[in-house]
Amino acid sequence: MNNHAKSMQDRIVRLHDNKLFQSAVIAIIILSALVIGANTYDMSESGRRVLKFLDLSVTLFFLVEILIRISASKGLKNFFSSGWNVFDFVIVTMSLIPIEGSQMVILGRLLRVLRVLRLISFIPELRILLNALVKAIPRMAYVAVFLFVIFYIYGAFGSFLFEHINSELWGDIAISMLTLFRVVTFEDWTDVMYETMAVYPLSWIYYLTFIFFAAFVFLNMMIGIVVDLIQREHTSYNLEHDEEGSMEQQMKRVEQRLADIDTKLDRVLQDSG
Amino acid sequence: MNNHAKSMQDRIVRLHDNKLFQSAVIAIIILSALVIGANTYDMSESGRRVLKFLDLSVTLFFLVEILIRISASKGLKNFFSSGWNVFDFVIVTMSLIPIEGSQMVILGRLLRVLRVLRLISFIPELRILLNALVKAIPRMAYVAVFLFVIFYIYGAFGSFLFEHINSELWGDIAISMLTLFRVVTFEDWTDVMYETMAVYPLSWIYYLTFIFFAAFVFLNMMIGIVVDLIQREHTSYNLEHDEEGSMEQQMKRVEQRLADIDTKLDRVLQDSG
Amino acid sequence: MNNHAKSMQDRIVRLHDNKLFQSAVIAIIILSALVIGANTYDMSESGRRVLKFLDLSVTLFFLVEILIRISASKGLKNFFSSGWNVFDFVIVTMSLIPIEGSQMVILGRLLRVLRVLRLISFIPELRILLNALVKAIPRMAYVAVFLFVIFYIYGAFGSFLFEHINSELWGDIAISMLTLFRVVTFEDWTDVMYETMAVYPLSWIYYLTFIFFAAFVFLNMMIGIVVDLIQREHTSYNLEHDEEGSMEQQMKRVEQRLADIDTKLDRVLQDSG
Amino acid sequence: MNNHAKSMQDRIVRLHDNKLFQSAVIAIIILSALVIGANTYDMSESGRRVLKFLDLSVTLFFLVEILIRISASKGLKNFFSSGWNVFDFVIVTMSLIPIEGSQMVILGRLLRVLRVLRLISFIPELRILLNALVKAIPRMAYVAVFLFVIFYIYGAFGSFLFEHINSELWGDIAISMLTLFRVVTFEDWTDVMYETMAVYPLSWIYYLTFIFFAAFVFLNMMIGIVVDLIQREHTSYNLEHDEEGSMEQQMKRVEQRLADIDTKLDRVLQDSG
Repeated sequence: MNNHAKSMQDRIVRLHDNKLFQSAVIAIIILSALVIGANTYDMSESGRRVLKFLDLSVTLFFLVEILIRISASKGLKNFFSSGWNVFDFVIVTMSLIPIEGSQMVILGRLLRVLRVLRLISFIPELRILLNALVKAIPRMAYVAVFLFVIFYIYGAFGSFLFEHINSELWGDIAISMLTLFRVVTFEDWTDVMYETMAVYPLSWIYYLTFIFFAAFVFLNMMIGIVVDLIQREHTSYNLEHDEEGSMEQQMKRVEQRLADIDTKLDRVLQDSG
Repeated sequence: MNNHAKSMQDRIVRLHDNKLFQSAVIAIIILSALVIGANTYDMSESGRRVLKFLDLSVTLFFLVEILIRISASKGLKNFFSSGWNVFDFVIVTMSLIPIEGSQMVILGRLLRVLRVLRLISFIPELRILLNALVKAIPRMAYVAVFLFVIFYIYGAFGSFLFEHINSELWGDIAISMLTLFRVVTFEDWTDVMYETMAVYPLSWIYYLTFIFFAAFVFLNMMIGIVVDLIQREHTSYNLEHDEEGSMEQQMKRVEQRLADIDTKLDRVLQDSG
Repeated sequence: MNNHAKSMQDRIVRLHDNKLFQSAVIAIIILSALVIGANTYDMSESGRRVLKFLDLSVTLFFLVEILIRISASKGLKNFFSSGWNVFDFVIVTMSLIPIEGSQMVILGRLLRVLRVLRLISFIPELRILLNALVKAIPRMAYVAVFLFVIFYIYGAFGSFLFEHINSELWGDIAISMLTLFRVVTFEDWTDVMYETMAVYPLSWIYYLTFIFFAAFVFLNMMIGIVVDLIQREHTSYNLEHDEEGSMEQQMKRVEQRLADIDTKLDRVLQDSG
Repeated sequence: MNNHAKSMQDRIVRLHDNKLFQSAVIAIIILSALVIGANTYDMSESGRRVLKFLDLSVTLFFLVEILIRISASKGLKNFFSSGWNVFDFVIVTMSLIPIEGSQMVILGRLLRVLRVLRLISFIPELRILLNALVKAIPRMAYVAVFLFVIFYIYGAFGSFLFEHINSELWGDIAISMLTLFRVVTFEDWTDVMYETMAVYPLSWIYYLTFIFFAAFVFLNMMIGIVVDLIQREHTSYNLEHDEEGSMEQQMKRVEQRLADIDTKLDRVLQDSG
């Protein structure tokens, strides 16, 4: 690499790490979000043209920004090793594809909406939050399976028993599970229940046991996670500050020393005796 | 037991413990669940025949699997000592009974739905989760009694006071308690309240005190359980890692040693004095 | 007190402490609750007569039971020092007053409903639970005042701004606060909001800020109580098991001993030197 | 300052710190709140005149009280350094401005409603509570941004996809976000969903993923805050009671002492050898 290219890359890295530049990126992301929002409003032709221009500017800025970031990183491989960079790259390049046809216009718009996610990828605090959320997923996975089994069993039951009453709510197992989700959010669940109770007066048992099971599993899961997290933090805290171990070793050294001293004193006594 | 039979059982145990075999069982359970789900959809005659065939295959597979498990366990008594095994056995044998008449068909279907529960009995992680949930029941039992007393008293009050307003909601104590459960889930509860307020303008006191009591008892129960669990884990952690006890004993040995040394030194002083 | 009377009281105390007698009391309380519940159902004349007879029997049994308890306790003053005893006494004596007139019949019934509360006063576990709940009240009192202030301010605002839109929901400050409670339980709150938004398009700010304030205060209160309780238990646990104090004293004794030994050794060295 | 003025200020300070005076202020604040509440009721002309008189008296009392507080504090600058004093001063002086015109009357009333907030500024326990709430805001700020991003993206999606179905619910991004807030409070959310499902049968995915994302982020935030707070309290507790540090130093001194003694004993042994 010749000197000129090197000083060029240095300048880019400096620009990339510059506070002002980073604030500008955040500002542009927010502008991009506002443009997306503004697109949902009815507008005059001139307003729409302004938005189109702003959208193009944002797309160009993002293109430049991503090129700067690629230059600032050491090699393409390094750059694409981060999932966030891949995400940014896809979002930006996809926006560059010229779109025609009304179907594609909607797709293009939806893609542009995802640019708002760049806010999360750019602000470190939000990134940390997201990582914490991603880490929380496996903890909740088995409980989700458990809840799914409950939904599936009640869904099949509901479909077998209530289909002839209201096929819009209990037509098949998928619709039944959606209805059960509605019941679990307490959304007009008594309307659903009263309808089946008119045919099967005891069908409240079905709803109440379902609500209790689902709420019981969910609440215990939440309690379990809280207790587990506190326990883990507590243990890790104790491990960090565990002076007991070294204390005990010190104690053993002291005892050893005292035994030595005692032996020597015995010898002194023998000598002087 | 002759050698042949023994090697036979050995092979069965090996098959039973085989990872692949266990994955196959899980796959078959999921297939069984899918068959149940598919049954809730409208289908052509041929589709229904495929489902019937799949159902029979699953039933046969479960029969073979349970026979393998009985062979792998040491004696029938041993096998039936586990509640899960009894559950599996009942589910499988009940599926074998030939069913006729539309009433029995529904019963047969409901029984087949319970096969999905085998997913919980088969995957260890879900089993652990279920055991944790079962353990949580007694902790919640007294609070449930407490809440039931509140519901019962308000149910009786509601039935005495509001029956003449709307007998569908307040007809007897059972219906009143169902209505109160509806109120506690905030499901169109103001409709219920406005109706009685038209006759008794002060009846909002009834609803608000009920909501506050129920929410207060419920929330305090949840808080109590969280605090209790954390406290218990904390105590058990401290008991496990309690080095203090041994520390104190070490300290006593050190003090004893020092007393001995002191006495000996006194003797040395006397001797040399 | 002569011997006869004394042995009489002894017998009563023994009866009072008898496990079987206590189970009988619980059974009668539950019977009393069932009688109350049965009263809410439509019944034949003969059924009603059976209920009346059962009610009378329960009342008499409670009278006898309370007399036994008074005899078993040392003096009336001692008996009435417990709030629960006063409660039981009032419930039982009030049931004895002969009631006539339909208004009084309802009052009599409501009074009998309160007998179910004796279940809580009689079963120790429920009593403990109730005491824990009563203890939790002061902790929540200031937050309740805080929430009341928020409700009052928003209630006054709502009444001033929206009364002309719907006087049934915003007629005066009391009705407004009831409507706000409805909003906070998310019960058809959008209907309320859409109605005022038709006149004041920005009135969603009123509802959203209110929901956020109320939810924010409530959630923080709950978190505060959980954290506070865990902290308190933790502190009390540490105080109980605080061996550190005695440890430090032991350490000081050891250091003192070592200083003594050192001095003596110096003397030995001087002597022998 | 001459003696007369000084004794005057002393008297004011004494009055200001007087328990009775402070109780009087609280009573007047509550009276002021009651006057505001009474204003929302329909009233006879004479009743309205009484309210007007009470309102004037309260305003005058507050004016006197704030003058006393200004006198009791050392200088105006000192007085206005507290945000609460500024708040009180604004509330009181604004009430003094003569108001005419129906628009201004409502403004005047709304201003008077804010007087109820003085209850929080005057009762120390409520002030502490408020400070705790204010401190909790930054902790929740980033999560609020996170949730806002989710709402914004789903709002834009919803507006692009569903605007032609129901423009009252999905007309622009602001209305869409309000509709999404309604969905997240489970307020008739199935009505919203069923409407779009009639056009796009798969649109339940939109609602369910949104509910899951929002609930997941919210719940994890709550759990995170609880765990974080407990962790912090726990750490601060340990730091306060951290005797380990001094213990270790004591231990080191003991070891040093023992080394000294050992050396001396060696010398004794040499001497006597």
